[in-house]
Amino acid sequence: MTADADGFTAALRAQAQRYHDQHPFHIRMNAGLLGRQQIRGWVANRYYYQQNIPRKDAAILANCPDREVRRRWVRRILDHDGTAGGEGGIEAWLRLAEAVGLSREEVRSERHLVPGVRFAVDAYVTFARTRPWTEAVASSLTELFAPDLMSERLAAFERCYPWIDRDGLGYFRDRLTQAPRDAEHALQVVVERCRSADEQARAVAALSFKCDVLWSILDAIDHAYPD
Amino acid sequence: MTADADGFTAALRAQAQRYHDQHPFHIRMNAGLLGRQQIRGWVANRYYYQQNIPRKDAAILANCPDREVRRRWVRRILDHDGTAGGEGGIEAWLRLAEAVGLSREEVRSERHLVPGVRFAVDAYVTFARTRPWTEAVASSLTELFAPDLMSERLAAFERCYPWIDRDGLGYFRDRLTQAPRDAEHALQVVVERCRSADEQARAVAALSFKCDVLWSILDAIDHAYPD
Repeated sequence: MTADADGFTAALRAQAQRYHDQHPFHIRMNAGLLGRQQIRGWVANRYYYQQNIPRKDAAILANCPDREVRRRWVRRILDHDGTAGGEGGIEAWLRLAEAVGLSREEVRSERHLVPGVRFAVDAYVTFARTRPWTEAVASSLTELFAPDLMSERLAAFERCYPWIDRDGLGYFRDRLTQAPRDAEHALQVVVERCRSADEQARAVAALSFKCDVLWSILDAIDHAYPD
Repeated sequence: MTADADGFTAALRAQAQRYHDQHPFHIRMNAGLLGRQQIRGWVANRYYYQQNIPRKDAAILANCPDREVRRRWVRRILDHDGTAGGEGGIEAWLRLAEAVGLSREEVRSERHLVPGVRFAVDAYVTFARTRPWTEAVASSLTELFAPDLMSERLAAFERCYPWIDRDGLGYFRDRLTQAPRDAEHALQVVVERCRSADEQARAVAALSFKCDVLWSILDAIDHAYPD
C-alpha cells in the first residue's frame, strides 16, 4: 500500500466521526432510555432500509464490469435475501420485529414508515443505481464502523430492554461477523480502484453521503417518535 | 390458468417466429456453411452478450421488490458468473473461444467487437435497467425458444465443424438444461404479474424487442464476416 493509499484509507476511516452511532436517538437507545413505542418505531422504519439493501447491492452488480468483484459482491444479496424459507437478513429483521411486539404483516405493510426514512433509503438506492459503481462500493463502507455500534447495541438490548426476546437479536449477531468481512472486501476494492485524487475525493464524498443517509433516517424516526 | 392467460402465453410463444434461429447467419451456421473466420467472429462478438448477461440480470434484481422472485433470479447470476475459478457460463464461453482458435485475451480485449453488436447488447442492458422489471423478465423469454436452437447447434458443430474441439462446446450443453428451467420460472412470473391487456401487450412487446436484439447481433456479425 502506498503512502497515498494510507492517507486515502485514513480519510475514509475519519468519516467514522459522522457515523450515526453519535446520533441522539442511538445514544438514547444504547443508554436504555427509549420506550417501547420508540423501539418499535425504529424497528418498523429501519425495515424499509433492510428491505432495500439487496436492491442496492444488485444495482452495484448491474454497474460492475468486473466479474471477480461481482462473484464476491453477490454474496451480500444471498446473505440478505437468503435462498429459502426463513433464511437471510430480511427474515432476521422480521424476527426482531416480532420480538419487539410488531406483527410481520404490519411491518411489511409499511404503515409505520415515515416519509423521511423512505426518502433517505430511496436516495441511497438511487445513488447506487446512478453513480459509478466504485462510488457505490465506497458508500457501503459505513460497515467499517458498524461492528462497534452493533456490539454496543446487542449489549444494550440485552441489559436495558429485557422485554425484548433475545432470540430476536439474531440480526445483530450475524452482522458482527458479516459487516467486517464485507467491509474488508469493499475497502480493498475502493483502495485498488480509486487512484487519482479526484476518484479518492469522490469515494470519501460517497461515504459521507451514506453517513447522511443513516443520520437522516434517525432524524426522521426521532421526530416521529419523541420522548 | 384462465383463458386469458392461455391467450397471453400463446402470444408470447408466437414470438418464436421472430427468433434468431431463422436468421440467415444461423441457418448457414447450422448447415455447416460458415468458414473459420466467420465462426470466430461470431464467438468473439457473442462474448460481449455473454459478458453482459449478469449485469442485465442484476438490473432486474435491482428493480424487483419481490424477495421470492429475487431468490430465484439470483441463480442466473451465479450460473453465469460462477462462484470461483473456471466456473460459470462466461468461463464456458471463453473455453469455446479457445476451441475455435481465439485466445482468451483477444476475446476479452473486445478487439473483434463490431459496433452493431455493442449497440444491441447495450440496448438490452439499458432496457432491463430502465423498464419495469416484469417487462425485463418478459424480454428474457427468448429462452423458451433457445433449447431447440441449442440442440441443433450442438449437432451441427459436432457434425460440420470437426476442427472445433468438442470439449469447447460445454456452454451449449449447459444451456440445454438451464434455459428451459429459467424460462419456465420467467414465464410463470410474467403470467402471474401481467394481468391487464396493457401489461400483457407490453410483455409481448418486450419479448419482441429482445428478438430484435438477437437478430441485430447476427445482422452486425453477418455484415462484418461475409462469405
